[in-house]
Amino acid sequence: MSRASGEFGIIKEILSPLTREMPGALGLTDDAALLRVEAGQELVVTKDAMVAGVHFLENEEPALIAKKLLRTNLSDLAAMGAHPVGYLLATAWTQACDEAWITEFARGLMEDQDIYDIGLLGGDTVKTLGPLTLSLTALGTVPAGKSLRRNSAKVGDLVFVSGSIGDAALGLQSILGKLTGLSAVDRNFLENRYHLPQPRTDLGPSLVDLAASCLDISDGLFADLGHICTESQVGMMINKGKIPLSDAATNALTQNPDCWQSIAGGGDDYELAFTLAPSRKDQILRLAETLDLPLTEIGVVNTGTRPQLKGENGDIIDIENGGWTHF
Amino acid sequence: MSRASGEFGIIKEILSPLTREMPGALGLTDDAALLRVEAGQELVVTKDAMVAGVHFLENEEPALIAKKLLRTNLSDLAAMGAHPVGYLLATAWTQACDEAWITEFARGLMEDQDIYDIGLLGGDTVKTLGPLTLSLTALGTVPAGKSLRRNSAKVGDLVFVSGSIGDAALGLQSILGKLTGLSAVDRNFLENRYHLPQPRTDLGPSLVDLAASCLDISDGLFADLGHICTESQVGMMINKGKIPLSDAATNALTQNPDCWQSIAGGGDDYELAFTLAPSRKDQILRLAETLDLPLTEIGVVNTGTRPQLKGENGDIIDIENGGWTHF
Repeated sequence: MSRASGEFGIIKEILSPLTREMPGALGLTDDAALLRVEAGQELVVTKDAMVAGVHFLENEEPALIAKKLLRTNLSDLAAMGAHPVGYLLATAWTQACDEAWITEFARGLMEDQDIYDIGLLGGDTVKTLGPLTLSLTALGTVPAGKSLRRNSAKVGDLVFVSGSIGDAALGLQSILGKLTGLSAVDRNFLENRYHLPQPRTDLGPSLVDLAASCLDISDGLFADLGHICTESQVGMMINKGKIPLSDAATNALTQNPDCWQSIAGGGDDYELAFTLAPSRKDQILRLAETLDLPLTEIGVVNTGTRPQLKGENGDIIDIENGGWTHF
Repeated sequence: MSRASGEFGIIKEILSPLTREMPGALGLTDDAALLRVEAGQELVVTKDAMVAGVHFLENEEPALIAKKLLRTNLSDLAAMGAHPVGYLLATAWTQACDEAWITEFARGLMEDQDIYDIGLLGGDTVKTLGPLTLSLTALGTVPAGKSLRRNSAKVGDLVFVSGSIGDAALGLQSILGKLTGLSAVDRNFLENRYHLPQPRTDLGPSLVDLAASCLDISDGLFADLGHICTESQVGMMINKGKIPLSDAATNALTQNPDCWQSIAGGGDDYELAFTLAPSRKDQILRLAETLDLPLTEIGVVNTGTRPQLKGENGDIIDIENGGWTHF
């Protein structure tokens, strides 16, 4: 029997060190965890599930799986304007998840805990005969009543996105061997953007009192902008030429002109899309400098019912279901 | 295409009605949910996972699966002395989980939401090719600093349990066809205790300021009393004759004398075990009347290192690993 064999051994030896900065985790010894929410703050809580073969590749590195799981949840907190505080983890391990695998998984979590200044609060570990299945619940705080929502975009708001768009979807295309003519550097950049999201945990809380509406781009740029339109009962006109692309995505597009569909329709970017009154534009540009993160104006909120795309020649390209009907 | 087909359809039509009493769920339209914790209160949070074929039978009724998942988490909150507030749900559905199945699953949740005065806050739904896998995160509140812990039993404390012990383990034995000579009434009672836990959500918060230590009995009476002993660095002497048995369990024991092992070693009772100073005994007896729930003194905390059992003839029966070494 290995040192950490059995559920209690794994919890005690491998998982409980992840609680070191979280007194409310009670060292994973009790039935539940405790968390104090400061006066004037509101709890923000989100929960995502991931299944091997659906949300990550079966043979993915365990540390990378752990980070992707954690970061997608942190992105949800950022989208609401919340500071992350801690998380709970439920894992249905397969036979292949031996002590070495779980140790690597925990190492990935620990590295990200240091980056995002959070800790493990609790959870559950079980066994499964099916694919590895993971669920993570992330908790954060936001000043009470100040959370960023999808339903509060106003006609005349400017539409912004952080970072660059489409890299993750192009990364997946690259992994699947569907992109041609790319350099190794570009390929690595795009694939890394797919494997390892960069949740905008500094940007989200900075947008409180500044943005009118916000979400994170997980379903794809136009699908997610569509969520804001639906919930806010507005439309948007997006300028195709203003959508920020990385150098690697620009190169991919030059070699593979039809990958525009992946850029605007593919998901997993985990950038933030947000709208704000035009009077706030200068504040956003200063914020971009402070955070050293591109924040790009890509369009405007109008009285329509969905996001539309204006091409470089001024033509309106209508978009249905997040994909492209005319192009 | 059915009315509720697709992830968005299922969320909108079947799951979002479960949020009706929870404004912080935001109708499941946003990236995360909001929860305000009143001043002077502390958040209590727990998360359990369940896999078909491991934690419930593959062909179990969906409403019953939903209730078992919810109630085991509510039991964890009760063990900490917390009032339940709401929950998040992550589901990895199989192909067999069609709209009718999910509708029944949601009906089970709704029935329990009415019983326990809680609501759905958020979560995630994904697909799996493996067994149905579920995870639930339950949130509750306790007066700050007053949560019930496992590490605070004191030598001289009396040991109490709620309800009756061993019914669930005997129920499982009955389902597996391993109990003989039981009436249909007794069989139904025991099997129902296995299928549908009764989390002690009224008792737990009533024990705040009264009990010294507390947990819920999920691993088995002696395994769980052992957790209190380990965390509190104490021992216990438990009187075998005082362990409260239901009429059905008494009948099962008469017919199957060796099922004592199931009674003290089997899990899934979801009763509370707690210790308290002898001076509080009268308050506990009054609480039992108020709640109309048996609260039975079964032993005393001593200077040992683990729970021991004293038989009716005064012999000490040593217990290892939650099972029985001499009997």
